[in-house]
Amino acid sequence: MKVALLQLKTLPTPEENLEKIKQMLVQAKQEGADLAVLPEMCCCPYENSAFVRYAMPENAPFLQGIAEMAGALGLYVVAGSVPLAADGRIYNAAFVYDNKGSCIARHRKTHLFDINVPGGQYFMESDTFTAGRDVTTFDTPWGRMGLMICYDIRFPELSRLLALEGARAILVPAAFNMTTGPAHWEMSFRMRALDNQVFLAGCAPARDLQSSYTAWGHSIVTDPWGSVVAELDENEGILTAELDFARLEQVRAELPLLKHRRTDCYDIIRK
Amino acid sequence: MKVALLQLKTLPTPEENLEKIKQMLVQAKQEGADLAVLPEMCCCPYENSAFVRYAMPENAPFLQGIAEMAGALGLYVVAGSVPLAADGRIYNAAFVYDNKGSCIARHRKTHLFDINVPGGQYFMESDTFTAGRDVTTFDTPWGRMGLMICYDIRFPELSRLLALEGARAILVPAAFNMTTGPAHWEMSFRMRALDNQVFLAGCAPARDLQSSYTAWGHSIVTDPWGSVVAELDENEGILTAELDFARLEQVRAELPLLKHRRTDCYDIIRK
Repeated sequence: MKVALLQLKTLPTPEENLEKIKQMLVQAKQEGADLAVLPEMCCCPYENSAFVRYAMPENAPFLQGIAEMAGALGLYVVAGSVPLAADGRIYNAAFVYDNKGSCIARHRKTHLFDINVPGGQYFMESDTFTAGRDVTTFDTPWGRMGLMICYDIRFPELSRLLALEGARAILVPAAFNMTTGPAHWEMSFRMRALDNQVFLAGCAPARDLQSSYTAWGHSIVTDPWGSVVAELDENEGILTAELDFARLEQVRAELPLLKHRRTDCYDIIRK
Repeated sequence: MKVALLQLKTLPTPEENLEKIKQMLVQAKQEGADLAVLPEMCCCPYENSAFVRYAMPENAPFLQGIAEMAGALGLYVVAGSVPLAADGRIYNAAFVYDNKGSCIARHRKTHLFDINVPGGQYFMESDTFTAGRDVTTFDTPWGRMGLMICYDIRFPELSRLLALEGARAILVPAAFNMTTGPAHWEMSFRMRALDNQVFLAGCAPARDLQSSYTAWGHSIVTDPWGSVVAELDENEGILTAELDFARLEQVRAELPLLKHRRTDCYDIIRK
């Protein structure tokens, strides 16, 4: 299975981003991708005011445009995230379209990103967003996949639940910043993959020094041994990588971490 | 609070190791340590045959010698681990002596290390040891501490339980090898510290190329931001480091990961 991570430099409006995403999806398909992942907030700038301005329903033109492209190209697409307007609230949500263009999964970010590092990053997603309470998996011809959004990766419980529910790869639209990126991005993707003996793929926006929230970039794929399979720098581009599920089975046989969990002593429960 | 990690090159017998450990404890005290940590299997070679040969009761001369030294120096000591003979079984166990020489905690390794990497490391602890089922914390003048042994660190559930039970630092006698060491040692200590917003201190044996199990060494202290505070190379030596608990409070305020856990959606339970 070949994944393509579309590290796009986000433009001001959903219309402009949709046009660029369509072009990048065509390119990803040409490069042999089976599944493409978009970055967190791929429709608008990462700003609370933009989240309110561009909040969209599930059947918005932006999402429908991506769904149609998925069907036209015969490509699975993780479209996310966008500010989702639903129930009079706004969620940070990602949608998965299969190769026929049908929506097969939706994840609303479970953990909202509130950070305040003096001299570093400040952001309060909870000013705008309502948190979801999803543990999201979906099935593909290559096996079950898990889906999280950015800050969700900070919480080992969620990755573990996804792995226990059968995910063999966890896809993560994300947007770390210039404080948390260099400190934690690569390590987080390596360690969640290692602990749960799965692949992780994190797709970030390209860095834009003009934006109010400067993304770290560095879209990444990590493997069940905790190694980096492939990683971009901060510039716009497409990262493609093969997920070798035979490698997953090999690592699980050699160092059977999932099997060695002491569920007679502890367990993670889903409420 | 100043910790000292005694990265000793293990000698063949408990008697020889006790003599060396006593000297190193004196040196650690001279360097201002409040608490000293010994490596996994600090009394004998890391071999199943040695574990059987040197299995000792709780009141064995080796452990009593360390307890007396702790009291004489006024130093907290994490003595471990040793092969503990109890209930007709053998455990991989560590003991904590306070600055009066009293035993205040005992941890029996909860996760036994069974690995089989073709061309890499092979070891089956379960051939000899019985697993404990402990989640071990103890109180000191500097706050509550958690205690794990080596392979226990592989399981995010255990570190999380220790942090939730109030541990502000987790001490880990350990012995990664030449396969898992370069791949996973530093990242594991950084990530468990980051996820749980605590300090971690891992004490390993020095590397001995003559031994059947070649230790990675690299005793390490990591902080709640996931950074390395201090780390040794593979040679025998003492690593001292200050655990700055004001830094812990600062990180927890800036990026409140523990507070952001969604315990309304999931939780870790202890059985």
